[in-house]
Amino acid sequence: METTTLKLRRVAIDTYKENVAYLHRDCEFYRSEGFQALNKIEVSSAQNGNSVIAVLNIVDDVSITTPGELGLSEQVFDQFSVSEGTAVTIAHAIAPQSIKSVHRKISGERLQFEDYLAINQDIARNSYSKIEIAAYLVGCAESGLDRDEVLYLTRAMLQTGEQLHWDEPLVVDKHCIGGIPGNRTSMLVVPIVAEHGMLMPKTSSRAITSPAGTADTMEVLANVDLSPDTMHHLVTHERAFLAWGGTAKLAPVDDILIAVERPLSMDSPGQMVASILSKKVAAGSTHLLIDIPIGPTAKICSQTNAMKLRKLFEYVGDCMGLTLEVLITDGRQPIGHGIGPVLEARDVMRILENHPLAPLDLREKSLQLAGRILEFDPDVRGGQGYRLARDILESGRALQKMQAIMRAQGASGYIARPSKLQHQVIAHDTGRVEAIDNLQLAQIAHLAGAPMDKEAGIDLHKKIGDTVEKDEPIYTIHAEFNADFKFAKQASTADNAYQVGA
Amino acid sequence: METTTLKLRRVAIDTYKENVAYLHRDCEFYRSEGFQALNKIEVSSAQNGNSVIAVLNIVDDVSITTPGELGLSEQVFDQFSVSEGTAVTIAHAIAPQSIKSVHRKISGERLQFEDYLAINQDIARNSYSKIEIAAYLVGCAESGLDRDEVLYLTRAMLQTGEQLHWDEPLVVDKHCIGGIPGNRTSMLVVPIVAEHGMLMPKTSSRAITSPAGTADTMEVLANVDLSPDTMHHLVTHERAFLAWGGTAKLAPVDDILIAVERPLSMDSPGQMVASILSKKVAAGSTHLLIDIPIGPTAKICSQTNAMKLRKLFEYVGDCMGLTLEVLITDGRQPIGHGIGPVLEARDVMRILENHPLAPLDLREKSLQLAGRILEFDPDVRGGQGYRLARDILESGRALQKMQAIMRAQGASGYIARPSKLQHQVIAHDTGRVEAIDNLQLAQIAHLAGAPMDKEAGIDLHKKIGDTVEKDEPIYTIHAEFNADFKFAKQASTADNAYQVGA
Repeated sequence: METTTLKLRRVAIDTYKENVAYLHRDCEFYRSEGFQALNKIEVSSAQNGNSVIAVLNIVDDVSITTPGELGLSEQVFDQFSVSEGTAVTIAHAIAPQSIKSVHRKISGERLQFEDYLAINQDIARNSYSKIEIAAYLVGCAESGLDRDEVLYLTRAMLQTGEQLHWDEPLVVDKHCIGGIPGNRTSMLVVPIVAEHGMLMPKTSSRAITSPAGTADTMEVLANVDLSPDTMHHLVTHERAFLAWGGTAKLAPVDDILIAVERPLSMDSPGQMVASILSKKVAAGSTHLLIDIPIGPTAKICSQTNAMKLRKLFEYVGDCMGLTLEVLITDGRQPIGHGIGPVLEARDVMRILENHPLAPLDLREKSLQLAGRILEFDPDVRGGQGYRLARDILESGRALQKMQAIMRAQGASGYIARPSKLQHQVIAHDTGRVEAIDNLQLAQIAHLAGAPMDKEAGIDLHKKIGDTVEKDEPIYTIHAEFNADFKFAKQASTADNAYQVGA
Repeated sequence: METTTLKLRRVAIDTYKENVAYLHRDCEFYRSEGFQALNKIEVSSAQNGNSVIAVLNIVDDVSITTPGELGLSEQVFDQFSVSEGTAVTIAHAIAPQSIKSVHRKISGERLQFEDYLAINQDIARNSYSKIEIAAYLVGCAESGLDRDEVLYLTRAMLQTGEQLHWDEPLVVDKHCIGGIPGNRTSMLVVPIVAEHGMLMPKTSSRAITSPAGTADTMEVLANVDLSPDTMHHLVTHERAFLAWGGTAKLAPVDDILIAVERPLSMDSPGQMVASILSKKVAAGSTHLLIDIPIGPTAKICSQTNAMKLRKLFEYVGDCMGLTLEVLITDGRQPIGHGIGPVLEARDVMRILENHPLAPLDLREKSLQLAGRILEFDPDVRGGQGYRLARDILESGRALQKMQAIMRAQGASGYIARPSKLQHQVIAHDTGRVEAIDNLQLAQIAHLAGAPMDKEAGIDLHKKIGDTVEKDEPIYTIHAEFNADFKFAKQASTADNAYQVGA
């Protein structure tokens, strides 16, 4: 290294959550230090003392990186916060110390709080490569975490991110473990509960592999990327907001893990519970309602597993000082009619407007959840929550509250209009709908373009128990682009997700 | 997709064992199909029917890839075998079917031959991403493979690669499980055994993280990248060769797994045994000697673990129809004086030349191993192998055989000369050498530039049991470049790897 340096260059390649560095093959460092493609290197700047870890790619084209330059992909360049042309030095990255704990977990050992803290801190500063993260996640999934380990992990994740404070004794939240298309209960629970006067500052995620997250759907109605000032204003004036949680840095590790969990379809109970509870505590919640849907194509397929998961939520929640309740709900089919941002937003507004076409299942489930949350209020008598929630909804006060929240969050700039392409999927047989495959419908809606194209998705005309005639439409596919439309139609032709019996 | 296509472009970036595809952000496919950076895509050519799986990077610079192009990194472009400008189509890659078996292994299930075959075939065709490979390896390491699973895996790996056939009843080979610097026994065993007339077509690896592999060291003396014709010629005329095994495609999966195993420091017994034995059977061996060194800084630290590993080798070897013997050897310190290609080649040649400075431990160990292999010959009486090997060595016939092999393999173009930079590391205390850390010495030699700079490495002056005076040199560091030299010296100052006691 001596005093030799390289000039920093931004390489206009988006490598998502993986930091990539580009070094020309004729660079003297490549030759003299035995670097190799896929090695991890540490890039440091004497100017501001920053350093980042990146995976190395070797370049043979000076238009990408010259021998005197060190290129960084877009995300890591931004994270590094040093301007182009600045002198940087590079060195072999040393494997993070906490990898030893990962190897101990892989050998079946029980880890302590300090282990989980070190692992999470190293992940948060991007010191883990994707394969090291995969090893950590599989290690945790395979030998499993006992409930105290889940508690340690929750505390470690909490300590790794930032936290919000609301200075109130009762801050409520709800969370569904996911997997059920439609199911947009938060957008109904929040206005009902806030109208009652409870504080519910709701941060939600965007969809990654599903057809819509609450943030995607809310964005049809209002801006969801809120500044801390706007959040504060909403809390003061409306007792609630419905924001995207991505900018708050409450769970930096979670955002990194997800880039490995999703492609691997890994979703172990320990990681899930720790991730949810640490995020809720970080968001300042004191009272939390967890929704666990059960069904053959839901995340949880059996009552036994739902009960185990409930106990785990209760144990860790209690230790974290949360007042936590778990509701086990029906996850055999999508909730509501629409799947996809615009179609789901339409369902939500119809329920708030007491519209005759409002989906009754989404309305009923939202009232159940809102009722349970209202009962966190010491002044609400046990068993009275549901009726109270229904009164707030039927009186139109929930609609007024939602409109006030939408106004205060500001217009998202999105203008709703019908989708350009529509296709009706018809029943093959006459009979009664016996089962609906959540996963297949989510896949079809995703192929149709949801959530990227807000109008895209599926509108369901039949639910379990409904009778259908042969050739009668069971749902309509909505899309914006020909290619998506074709893919979605192909997928529904191969398997329309409906089981109809005599 | 319809009939729309993209023009193939080679992007001059070396991404080693990871296939990367580059798509411009303004490409209509990126927009319309919901691709995202790090998604896996399948690229297909109608021209030759080829298709490859690659991880997607999104490009914001038309000098790398334009919106109408699909870029591929160097390795995957070569593998795809379609020229630049050819029309290609892309689609979301479907997760390989065998991933389900990986998930079953992660849940602790025992897999069958069909599972391992499907996994290995999918890995061989590059359908697994690095994180999927990591999940597979950790899954195997954590719940472990029982001995029948190791057998299934061995058969699956064998079936996935190509095989060599020699049409002889006795084809011998040896293998050391590794981790001991120096230890260049193959280059002595091969000429001794071949001189006796036994067939020993030896393929070896290059170092990846160690300071030298047999192929790196042999390359100091002769060409190791042999064509099938040259191998055939050598087998006919010399009964042996010492070649690099990389071009033979005997173990395509192994070459891919290693890119994940090394950075993770994963080396589970099941994967190791299956990888070694499948490769030996693929190389056409019938009789095999396995060397398992034990020592505190060797791969195997205890007699119990060595014995377990021996039984596993024996079980799988027998089932595969190999005649297999296991030798458990002393792995407490490096074998020989030199560590690094030139220094190790010097040791080998000194032993063959019966030179007074020849390292006795490497000579003795090589004779032991050669002796055991000679006893695979039905005409050699049990217990007579060692003496026979020693006669062949001391008479100079082993040297003549080695020279004949070197001539037939052709000159590698490498001209040996002393290293440019040398530094003597001295003892801190007077006393007796009690322990030497293999891992630390390997690290120092690697930092010094071995195996990339053939002259670089370490020359040991003291071994366990030797007495040393304070300030007496214990070893010399050799390097070619200032930066490497400095790093190696720093590492030896921090920890010189020697423990000297009174």
